[in-house]
Amino acid sequence: MGREDASVAERAGARGVPEDGVVVDFDALTAFTVRVLEAAGVADADARTTADVLVTTDAWGVFTHGTKLLRGYLRRLQAGGLRPAGRPRIAAEGGAWATVDGDSSLGMVASVFAMNVAIAKARQQGIAYVGVRDSCHFGAAGYYAWLAAEAGLVGLSMANDTPSVAAPGSRGAVTGSNPIAYAFPVGGRRPVILDMSTATVAGGKVYAAREAGRPIPEGWLIDPEGLPTTDSSLYPGRATLTPAAGHKGYGLALLIEVLAGVLTGANITWQVGSWIASDPSRPTFHGAAFLAIDIEVLMPRARYDERIRALVDEIHAAPVADGAHPLVLPGEHEWARYEAAERDGIHLPPDVVASLGEAAELVGLEFETPS
Amino acid sequence: MGREDASVAERAGARGVPEDGVVVDFDALTAFTVRVLEAAGVADADARTTADVLVTTDAWGVFTHGTKLLRGYLRRLQAGGLRPAGRPRIAAEGGAWATVDGDSSLGMVASVFAMNVAIAKARQQGIAYVGVRDSCHFGAAGYYAWLAAEAGLVGLSMANDTPSVAAPGSRGAVTGSNPIAYAFPVGGRRPVILDMSTATVAGGKVYAAREAGRPIPEGWLIDPEGLPTTDSSLYPGRATLTPAAGHKGYGLALLIEVLAGVLTGANITWQVGSWIASDPSRPTFHGAAFLAIDIEVLMPRARYDERIRALVDEIHAAPVADGAHPLVLPGEHEWARYEAAERDGIHLPPDVVASLGEAAELVGLEFETPS
Repeated sequence: MGREDASVAERAGARGVPEDGVVVDFDALTAFTVRVLEAAGVADADARTTADVLVTTDAWGVFTHGTKLLRGYLRRLQAGGLRPAGRPRIAAEGGAWATVDGDSSLGMVASVFAMNVAIAKARQQGIAYVGVRDSCHFGAAGYYAWLAAEAGLVGLSMANDTPSVAAPGSRGAVTGSNPIAYAFPVGGRRPVILDMSTATVAGGKVYAAREAGRPIPEGWLIDPEGLPTTDSSLYPGRATLTPAAGHKGYGLALLIEVLAGVLTGANITWQVGSWIASDPSRPTFHGAAFLAIDIEVLMPRARYDERIRALVDEIHAAPVADGAHPLVLPGEHEWARYEAAERDGIHLPPDVVASLGEAAELVGLEFETPS
Repeated sequence: MGREDASVAERAGARGVPEDGVVVDFDALTAFTVRVLEAAGVADADARTTADVLVTTDAWGVFTHGTKLLRGYLRRLQAGGLRPAGRPRIAAEGGAWATVDGDSSLGMVASVFAMNVAIAKARQQGIAYVGVRDSCHFGAAGYYAWLAAEAGLVGLSMANDTPSVAAPGSRGAVTGSNPIAYAFPVGGRRPVILDMSTATVAGGKVYAAREAGRPIPEGWLIDPEGLPTTDSSLYPGRATLTPAAGHKGYGLALLIEVLAGVLTGANITWQVGSWIASDPSRPTFHGAAFLAIDIEVLMPRARYDERIRALVDEIHAAPVADGAHPLVLPGEHEWARYEAAERDGIHLPPDVVASLGEAAELVGLEFETPS
């Protein structure tokens, strides 16, 4: 892994990245991402789609799943495991469903295509399910759910992945972190978006503890014997993430494996390639699934808006413990960061800046950081 | 509440119920349940539907959600909040969706009706969503998901409920325990079924600790100030269940509130009546939602069977920690108990036996316990 093993601080320091990162303009980061992808042979429309997923994710403050991923995607685009000219297409379909063959295109390209199919079919039938095979890592699941909510529908998105998460009692990994996200519109306000992994915590949190030399709380990891450990240095080679809420997270991960993997013809569990660690010249054959429910087919929009706003307002007004902040709906923190990013730019942490520099180098370009 | 406040041991003891409960035949318990419901004015077909839900749940060993509920349902049937002659009907529908008006029928009657509509529509369209309003407590969510799996489909079921579960930071309850269940077929074997509340633990576990005078582990409950407590005696009047995995359980509960409540026209959060504690002459107006995905529409059955069995076999063979049992898929424990119940009878715990005796008395019958 070489470079992967160097600490973030080392890598960022070696590139002269300021310790507190840099602030970049939303549009400038988008333009950079498009340029880099185009340099790797991705068509303009697909590059724009991918850039919107990644930069929106950064703007939400979810830096683990934003443009930081670009470098890894470029490696696969260059090696052939991701096909720059891959064209997702409907392999089979019916009234309220479709199976999309991702054609080893970028996960963002296949996923946006699939969610748009789900939205179109849900507008006709009320609900639709679209499964995807031959996809790759798709970034933040929440983006695709949000696409549906932006169009006025309830959206769900999920994906399988190479195993990294234990089941209760297991010694090692059994399922992927198998993320699931949903979003629903809130009549004239920002949509509610929940994007969660089915593990107790994302691997990124364990990495961060490892880099800082800190132990992690009990309950996050098991060691190679299958016993709880707080030693972050074991991760990822010699420790495994635990499922969220034990059998509940494990059970949800299984459901996602069925909807995104078994039913789509994608690879399943250990057959799924690691988008980071596996041979970059081979497709990973990830699976994904997208559901959309069209609200206006079910009830008048004004009635929905009134009902959903009443629910949201009730939660905002709920009494909180002394010293606790008022309750939020999922996604509110992300939207606050998004609005700050639109206004003031996106404050990229140093590891993202270093990664963008390396991404640019892969295609002979440069990531110009304002200083 | 009177009788509700007496301990299980007191109530069972007063009725002469053996300390280790009684064993009843599957068919005898079904016949008893049908007889009691018919005595309360429920038509034969609806009584049989309800009995099958409750007795199957007991046979799975989920005694908190089986025939123990009969007594409470009978009270509402007699008081008018549940309508013995209520007829669920499709209030609105389209290609892959329907909204069912439960007509204050038993939750089991409305839910089986709705899942059957979802199955029929999914066979045409690939997937279907059926929402229900004017329903009541529906027992074990897993039963309805299993109906779909028995028919060869993937099934999901969920319901809202009167609030009993906190959100992260809240002082009291914000959402119901909002259960969600799924089931999928496993080619010639018993279906996988997961039935989970979105709370950390079911209220029944806290009741059990309270009755035994035991404290509960930290993380299950918050006190009236919104702070963690291990004092089981505070529940339910002065303590609130926590959401499973914090914001994840809270977020799933919200999604269920939208799919089962907001989109169906059912009551939402605090408007939903407590099926136990609210005025039994008034409907509770619970909401529920059912989804079915027809596997054979998506891929050849043999291919699905092969893929799902490979997944299940892989999990069964996964290495486990020293001393841990081999991994199970959700529902395997319940099926083992079900098969024992078919063979040897259902071993009802004393609280269920006492409750069945009280149920029988409500309609002037008797629950004859073998001795």
